[in-house]
Amino acid sequence: VNVPLLTSTVDAVDGTARATTVHTPRGQIETPCFMPVGTRGAVRHLAANDLDDLGVQVVLANTYHLMMRPGAELVAELGGLHQMMAWDGHVLTDSGGFQVFSLEPKVDDDGVTFRSTYDGTRHRFTPASVVDTQRLLGADIQMVLDVCPPLPSPPNVVALAMERTAAWAQLARDAMDVHRSNGSTQALFGIVQGGIDVDLRRRSAEHTRTVGFDGYGIGGLSVGEPRHEMLPALAAALGELPTDQPRYLMGVGDPRSVVEAVGLGVDLFDCVLPTRLARHGTILTAAGRLNLRNLVHATSDEPLDPACACPVCARWSRGYLRHLLLVQEPTVARLCTIHNVHWLLRLVEEARDAVLAGTFDALRARVADRWP
Amino acid sequence: VNVPLLTSTVDAVDGTARATTVHTPRGQIETPCFMPVGTRGAVRHLAANDLDDLGVQVVLANTYHLMMRPGAELVAELGGLHQMMAWDGHVLTDSGGFQVFSLEPKVDDDGVTFRSTYDGTRHRFTPASVVDTQRLLGADIQMVLDVCPPLPSPPNVVALAMERTAAWAQLARDAMDVHRSNGSTQALFGIVQGGIDVDLRRRSAEHTRTVGFDGYGIGGLSVGEPRHEMLPALAAALGELPTDQPRYLMGVGDPRSVVEAVGLGVDLFDCVLPTRLARHGTILTAAGRLNLRNLVHATSDEPLDPACACPVCARWSRGYLRHLLLVQEPTVARLCTIHNVHWLLRLVEEARDAVLAGTFDALRARVADRWP
Repeated sequence: VNVPLLTSTVDAVDGTARATTVHTPRGQIETPCFMPVGTRGAVRHLAANDLDDLGVQVVLANTYHLMMRPGAELVAELGGLHQMMAWDGHVLTDSGGFQVFSLEPKVDDDGVTFRSTYDGTRHRFTPASVVDTQRLLGADIQMVLDVCPPLPSPPNVVALAMERTAAWAQLARDAMDVHRSNGSTQALFGIVQGGIDVDLRRRSAEHTRTVGFDGYGIGGLSVGEPRHEMLPALAAALGELPTDQPRYLMGVGDPRSVVEAVGLGVDLFDCVLPTRLARHGTILTAAGRLNLRNLVHATSDEPLDPACACPVCARWSRGYLRHLLLVQEPTVARLCTIHNVHWLLRLVEEARDAVLAGTFDALRARVADRWP
Repeated sequence: VNVPLLTSTVDAVDGTARATTVHTPRGQIETPCFMPVGTRGAVRHLAANDLDDLGVQVVLANTYHLMMRPGAELVAELGGLHQMMAWDGHVLTDSGGFQVFSLEPKVDDDGVTFRSTYDGTRHRFTPASVVDTQRLLGADIQMVLDVCPPLPSPPNVVALAMERTAAWAQLARDAMDVHRSNGSTQALFGIVQGGIDVDLRRRSAEHTRTVGFDGYGIGGLSVGEPRHEMLPALAAALGELPTDQPRYLMGVGDPRSVVEAVGLGVDLFDCVLPTRLARHGTILTAAGRLNLRNLVHATSDEPLDPACACPVCARWSRGYLRHLLLVQEPTVARLCTIHNVHWLLRLVEEARDAVLAGTFDALRARVADRWP
């Protein structure tokens, strides 16, 4: 029996929502926690000191992209992701499966073959190779290789994806066990699949738990389906997962879905949403989405969000930031990124505080009102 | 007789090099001083807090670009450049003449007519209109509209440009005197032209001094001519300028030319060089230029410049920054910009320290050795 490398202390529950502390070899992670995406080893427009300043606890990096450039061996030669980025917070590497499955790959029972978007070369991922690649990258948390079909897909496609994900889970676990016996302190998360079918989700979660991981990702959601189809599938998966380990809803970052998922018991989130929206001038605020391109902001001396305590809202006006946006000065992408990431981090902190205070329903109602 | 709004206290001289303190209504500027370029109201990839952190004393903005977007009236409505940028250091606005003369404009004795690069609309600059526009922008220092021919140009073109610049100087001065009598505390700098002809440069400087300004720009140099042709023309101009007011060599920022010009008695510099080079991965270092794309840096854990005290050199390796450069992560443009600006600011600080210590020749020799 594997002893999990990560454990979650449940600090409070409020209904099915929970606030936990994840204990890791590096330290701890307070949840709910939003993890910004730094695909190639940097969150777009930010550096490690900015992550410090924002209070980021975990940052994501992507195995597919880093394997292609600069190469996992080169990252290892630079001391691994932490030393390369010069950051001592937590790093999680996605397996790259999500990217690879968008490249019309050839999938068989043993792995997936695809062509690189960088130079057209052929590559193959197997559950074990992806563990080995992530070992070179050196993140705190690895994700297993899963099969992620688009939604909607025919039931047999979703079921086959779930079956393969289940089979691959054991292969990844076995590969990691070899490293673990050699002293690795990298955690490995399994991934639950099953589309929006609650029965498949339940079976997938049960199987993944049986294989046994340090934490559990829920993948293949928020890929096009409406929220009212996502949440029951998510709830079905969560019901089968252990309560003393972290649960991570992959690729979800819109404020409403985050809060709804916290309400069901999710601990961890990642998404490019706050950073991507920022670059296009879409701002997260207490009053809802704000489109900075709107002419009404041209002469505004208001901050992006008057209710926000971030350094951008403390110093610059909508009018200035809109001007920089319209003339495509890169400074504005950075400033809006800082605001949006701060804002979303603060939202999950508020969710944590609300769970601790037993007032989570009020927070959920407030967010639902602003984010339809 | 106009009382100059700015005065220079000469703190030390070493040969013809000088260290001064420019006293302004906003405070003071220690020279030699390099002024980074923030064309549209932001130095590319930086914000006002970064200027604070770097110890920037003066930042440039550009009248042509700001007049087109967002418009001078809108900048005024946002409180002027300082309030808009949320920066309380010094701001200098270039007249936009240099940009306009690159647009194949129609020049007559009274002004210059051109089409906007933004939307093709026709616009006209006159010496007085440019003063009025810069009044709306609200910088600490305005520049007059000058005529800046490319080099080499036929002698008659250079002479006509100098004559028109001289005539326009008085018109700008007159326009500013109206604002001054209405309480304006904006300084106005004249501009010396005359190409690489030392006699024209001498006459232009003498005429500009006779009109009388708060400081003196030397324009139309470093526009393609070799350094050995630039320096004598520069020296000729400087010889005719008052010693108790600032002298500003426009558009020069390569380390060698900066140090040579300091040696001749220049106080102020601006140039896009450190920021533009940074975006392309060309790094200023104590050992000379470094091309970060070079394969030799791929596995390097050295900082960009081991002799540099900037926050980028304190934290990140060449290997990481080269990776970010090759995958076009915008973070690297920012980090290299911070390094290059810091490096050039430190170079002129070193030049000041050397003048104060009487060791300027040694500094000049060291820089000449690294920057051919």
